[in-house]
Parts: sequence; structure tokens; C-alpha cells
Amino acid sequence: MSLKGIQVIDLTRIISGPFCTQLLADFGADVIKIETPSGDPLRQQGRGRNGLSWYFAGYNRNKMSVALDLRSKEGLEVLRDMIRGADVLVENYRAGVLSKMGLSDAALEELNPKLLVCHISGFGADGPYAQRPSFDFIAQAMSGFMSVNGNRDDDPLRSGLPVSDLVAGLYAALGISATLANSTREERRFQSVDVGLTDSLISLLSYMASDTLAAGSPPERSGNDHPLVAPYGLFQTTDKPIAIAPSNDMIYARLLKVLGREDLLNDPRFDTNEKRMADRAAIRAEIEPIFLTDSCAAWIERLNEGGVPAGPVMSVPDVFRDPQVQHREMVVDVPHGEHGNVRMLGFPVKVKPDGCEMRRPAPELGEHGDAVLRALGYSDERIAELHASGVLAGKAETESGV
Amino acid sequence: MSLKGIQVIDLTRIISGPFCTQLLADFGADVIKIETPSGDPLRQQGRGRNGLSWYFAGYNRNKMSVALDLRSKEGLEVLRDMIRGADVLVENYRAGVLSKMGLSDAALEELNPKLLVCHISGFGADGPYAQRPSFDFIAQAMSGFMSVNGNRDDDPLRSGLPVSDLVAGLYAALGISATLANSTREERRFQSVDVGLTDSLISLLSYMASDTLAAGSPPERSGNDHPLVAPYGLFQTTDKPIAIAPSNDMIYARLLKVLGREDLLNDPRFDTNEKRMADRAAIRAEIEPIFLTDSCAAWIERLNEGGVPAGPVMSVPDVFRDPQVQHREMVVDVPHGEHGNVRMLGFPVKVKPDGCEMRRPAPELGEHGDAVLRALGYSDERIAELHASGVLAGKAETESGV
Repeated sequence: MSLKGIQVIDLTRIISGPFCTQLLADFGADVIKIETPSGDPLRQQGRGRNGLSWYFAGYNRNKMSVALDLRSKEGLEVLRDMIRGADVLVENYRAGVLSKMGLSDAALEELNPKLLVCHISGFGADGPYAQRPSFDFIAQAMSGFMSVNGNRDDDPLRSGLPVSDLVAGLYAALGISATLANSTREERRFQSVDVGLTDSLISLLSYMASDTLAAGSPPERSGNDHPLVAPYGLFQTTDKPIAIAPSNDMIYARLLKVLGREDLLNDPRFDTNEKRMADRAAIRAEIEPIFLTDSCAAWIERLNEGGVPAGPVMSVPDVFRDPQVQHREMVVDVPHGEHGNVRMLGFPVKVKPDGCEMRRPAPELGEHGDAVLRALGYSDERIAELHASGVLAGKAETESGV
Repeated sequence: MSLKGIQVIDLTRIISGPFCTQLLADFGADVIKIETPSGDPLRQQGRGRNGLSWYFAGYNRNKMSVALDLRSKEGLEVLRDMIRGADVLVENYRAGVLSKMGLSDAALEELNPKLLVCHISGFGADGPYAQRPSFDFIAQAMSGFMSVNGNRDDDPLRSGLPVSDLVAGLYAALGISATLANSTREERRFQSVDVGLTDSLISLLSYMASDTLAAGSPPERSGNDHPLVAPYGLFQTTDKPIAIAPSNDMIYARLLKVLGREDLLNDPRFDTNEKRMADRAAIRAEIEPIFLTDSCAAWIERLNEGGVPAGPVMSVPDVFRDPQVQHREMVVDVPHGEHGNVRMLGFPVKVKPDGCEMRRPAPELGEHGDAVLRALGYSDERIAELHASGVLAGKAETESGV
């Protein structure tokens, strides 16, 4: 049930890969993060406390760490030993790098005929751009995402979040889980999962894609207006703006009722969504003054009671203080030993009874190296040699459970 | 292997739920979409050709359709019969609606002790806001997403895509797949998966969340500037803007080399990322004129060769014409009988050898009703009665494979 007992060798760093393996680890997989002797660069990024990056801590919870010099022949041999016994291998090197390390799909299949390998890269594993370097921003630009994000008369705009990294990480976790679904280890055979950042964002183009393909004309940026519905968007109240989303005629009618403007229902200027879209400013001019008569919170209560989706625009600190967010445990405290308590995002998927669990904090660099190698049958002498030669880095392990 | 043979009863409509079940269907699950006798509202939305909405066609590929009046006692009884033999039930009603239909989690478990039920809703299944109506836009506002999307001095901005719907659909598909992983049907027990639109977007706050939690101060909107790195963003060339993402000092050095401005490397105004962030305009002023000496395509080739991620900002039609996108089959043609060929988004997760397949086009309303009921053991007489009473709607089935 779930991913308990699935062993994942994790060759990823920064965001997209680590987010994928964080999701797998949250669902119960045993994720062994392989780091270079200098560690995942994320350890040095973002704000931290007591010598720990909270950015790193979030994306690497529930994982173990082995610090291994994969540029050495011996380091690669240790990796191959690990892969032999694993269920899944995840990597987000640039396309082709793993092959150059002698770990092409064919070589991996020979090493472990039941392995599932997952490749995450900017443009995917093949095609004319496969070898190009990429990052989230490039995927946002080349997927069409930026072309539909932003205000009508402004430049195309990146998302404030690294959405292509995150969505690619999510797709990778889905691809792995779906491929592992519905089978036991005995029934498995070698599989290769390949996810690209650009492909991932393209797959979210939704009606922007289908309308473009059906009509041939490109979608427009529409800022906070919905491209298919009016009225819709932010409206000023006595204190702060309110977001309202009456997405069809039924909810539009409810909105007018709550606003006391049912007279508009049959107004020939506004009696279809098409007419309201054609002159968004006119319908806005009719209803905006009414919002200015009360506070955002008062309107939300009234609108929700009347069946109209509405909410405030919340800052990130607002979000973490919100009673619903707290009830849903979307922020949690995780003890990290000498680094103290770390507050981090909770689990977005709630499963009962076999839910996600916080089993261990993000690892120190190389914390589990000794234990992982011992579990592979390496002798204490051999482990000491690997430490001495710098192939195995990081502090020696005290915990024994792997 | 994968989701082949997994039977999913799909009570969802519009986007988030149908995207979840589309992903499950793409991975091989047998998805039976239950629609009201008037059909998923998406059938009437978006651009179409030959009487078919391409918006609907994309999100409902690979599914079967049964049109059932669930307001009637008999319709509910048919649904219960379907649930008895199913592996998964997915729904995106407002929280609590399914319980009012007599299908609480407890009732579902009694009906089918091996069922996995997945609830998708705006705020999740519990908590103070659980009963509030919601839509994508409200989740964007209340998750903090809008607060970090947009230009510095403008209003918070919604994403141009319905990201919360889509990410929630993805999480739901992941939750279902991970819960089904690693087990056979015999080993399963009742599980409930619960995904909220707001939670889903919160989980993508990334370093915006960790930095806020560690430092206490809210992140700022930074438009096309990266909040942690400079230089970065869009730069004008002789023809169109280029997106560049030199995300660390090594890639910054490569950028300067390609631009022929290695003199800047040790310039005391720019020799750390902190200094460059502190005066983004100054470093931009140094490099922007160089981009104006050649075309976007020429710069991309030169930058990529030098190891600097760079790309054009592409419109949605540009994306579909792009050779990489075509190589990756991110747009595919699917024959839809009398509606002709429909172009739609391809599969974002590439799996070999057991990859996603286009097995059937989006169904006509109720197309598979007769066959599904027959497979449940309903007699032809009973099926005719259900048609006559309006409980079972849509056209009679000709295909037999269910």
C-alpha cells in the first residue's frame, strides 16, 4: 500500500528532482539522496536558521543522504551497487549526462532488470533541443506560459513561482507512481520515465491550447480578467480588494442578488456573457461602487452565503496565519536536532488511513553513507577506506535504520 | 503494470477532476465518466469544430461516458452498483455533497471495502472554509500565488492558466496512483484521498514559503526579475526579446564570456550576486546594448553553446509549431468519428515501454451507458426501462468492449 518499502536512489539537486523525490518520500518511499561531496547547492541557498537552509530542509525531508564522489571509479562502483538493489532511480542531469557516466538506460537495465529510471530535464530526453541547458525561466518562456501571463498591454510575464520545475517534479512523481501501481515487485520489468520542464508546462495550457488549435488564433493576456467570463476579477472594498469568480450565468445571477442589483439580470446590455465580455468596463462600473460600501470580510461572508465564490488576496504570511490553512496543516513544525524546529509546508494530498508522514528531517550531508553501505554488505574496513580516499564524504553515521 | 485494468468511476466535471481522470485514463485506467443527462458543462464551452468542443475533447479523451440522473433513486442505485465493482471513485462536488447523496466515506467503505475514493474541492474536505464555494481564481487569491505573481508596482495578478485546478488534478492523480502502488487488488483496503485547490497551490510556494517562514517577512512581486538572482529576465535583441537565466556565478561567468564582457567579472560593482541584485538596472545597462547587436535566434545559439540557458518567449501558436514540441509529440491528432480530427495536447510523461496511449476519443454523452450496465449484469429489458424513465440518458451504445 502506497510507496512503503520502495527504495529510490535520488541523483537530483536544486528543485524539480528533489520535489519529485520529496513527494515519493512523503508517500513512504525510502529515498537515498546521493550528493556530491560538496552537497546539493540548495544547502547554501535561501534563508535559514542555526546553519540550516529552510529551502533545503523542505525539499529534502524524509530522505537519507549519501555523499559520494561520482567522478571517481570507486564512487561510481558504489552507485552501481546501490542501483542493483533499488526499485527506482531519479535523476535531473542534463539529457545524456547519465549515459556518459556509463549508466544509459540499456546499462541500467542490465544492472537491474526491474529498475524504474526517471529522467527529468529541461526539454526532455530526446529531440533537437535535448542537449540545450535549461532552467525554469526558459521553460516558462518556451512553453507559452509567459505569453498568457500578465496584463494586456505589458510584456509577457514569468510566474512568481518556479512552476515548470514544480509541475515537472509532480509529473515525474506521478509517472513513477502510476508505473509502480497495480503490481508487485515480482511482476515488474525495466521502465524508463522521461519528463521535460517545457512539456510539463505545455500540458497545462488547457483551453488556451484547445481554443488556439480549434480557432487558429493565439490567446491574449488578460491580466486579472478571465478570458472567457465577465464580470470576474478584483474589486475594491472599503479595506482591501476582493476576488470574485462568477463563472457562469447561474452564479452571475446569484452575485446580482447578493449585490441587490437583480435589475441588471434582464438589462439588454448585460444579459449574456458575450455582451458582458464585450464591455467589461460597463458591467464593472455598475457593480464596483456597491463593493465600496462594505469590508472585504463582510462581502465574502455575504457572497459565500449566496453561493458566489469570493475571497481575499492573501500575502504569503496571511496564508500561513489563515485558520483553514492551519486546520489543513499546510504549515508544520519539524524538529531538526541542533538546528531547532523548522516550519515548512505540509502535505498537499491527504490520505486516510495510510497518509503521508513526517518520518525524518532533511539529512545532514552524507549522514546515512555508512549505514547505506553497510546494508549493501560493505565491511567497516572498506567503508573506512572509502572515507579515507574521499570517495565517501560527510559525517559518519550513528543511526542504524536504513 | 501502470493503471491497466484499474476501473475508475468519475463523478467530476469542468477541469480539476476531469484532468485528474484524464491522467489516470492516459496511464491506462478504465475511466467511466458519469454525466448528468445534460452532460458535463464543458461540452458547451470553448471553441469547437463539427459540433464538438475541443476543450472537452482534450480533458475527456480515453474515457467512457454514462449519462445518469443521480437525482433519481434508480439512478443512484445504478451508481451504487457501479461503485461495488470499481477500484477508484473520483468526485469534485463541493465538500459534503456526496455524503448528502448517501455516499459518505463510511457508506462507500461498506459498499466496497477495497475502494479508493478521491475528493477534490476548493478548500479540502474539512476545516472552517470547507463548505465555501470556490473556483480556481479564489484559490489563486487565497494561496498567496497572486501575491507573488505580477510586476512590482502593479496589483497581485492571477496566472493566465487555471493553475490551481490543474495542479489539484495532478495531485489527485498522484495521490491515487501512489496509494495504488506496490500492491495488488487483494491487498488493498478502503482509502480516502482528499485534495484542495488552495492547498495544492500553497504547496508550490517553494522558497517563497521557506524564506517567509525563516525570515518572517513577506516575499515581493518581482515581475520578470528573479527574486534571488541578477542579471536574469527578458532582454531586447534586434528582433524579439530573449529570456536568459544565469542562475549562479558559474553561469554568470559563462554569460559574460559569450557577451565578450569578461572585464565585468571582477568589476567591484558586480562581483557578487548580492551587489548585482542591489542594482539590477546597472548590470542590465552594461549588457542590454550587446543583445541589441544580433537576433534572438543567433543569441540563443551562441548562449546555449556557451552553456547559458536562453530561449525566446513563445506564443501558444509558436509553441505548437516548434520542432522540439513536435518531436516530443506534445500536440497530437486524434480522430473523433463524424467530428473529424481533433488536435490536442499530447502526453507530458513519456514512459517506455509501457507508455500512455490514445485508446479512444472523448465520448459522446452517454455513449457507453448500455455497455457498462450490461457488464454489471443489467438485462436489456431493465436497460430499456431506465432509458424510458429518463434515468439513463444519451444515445444507445453500439461498441461492446467495456
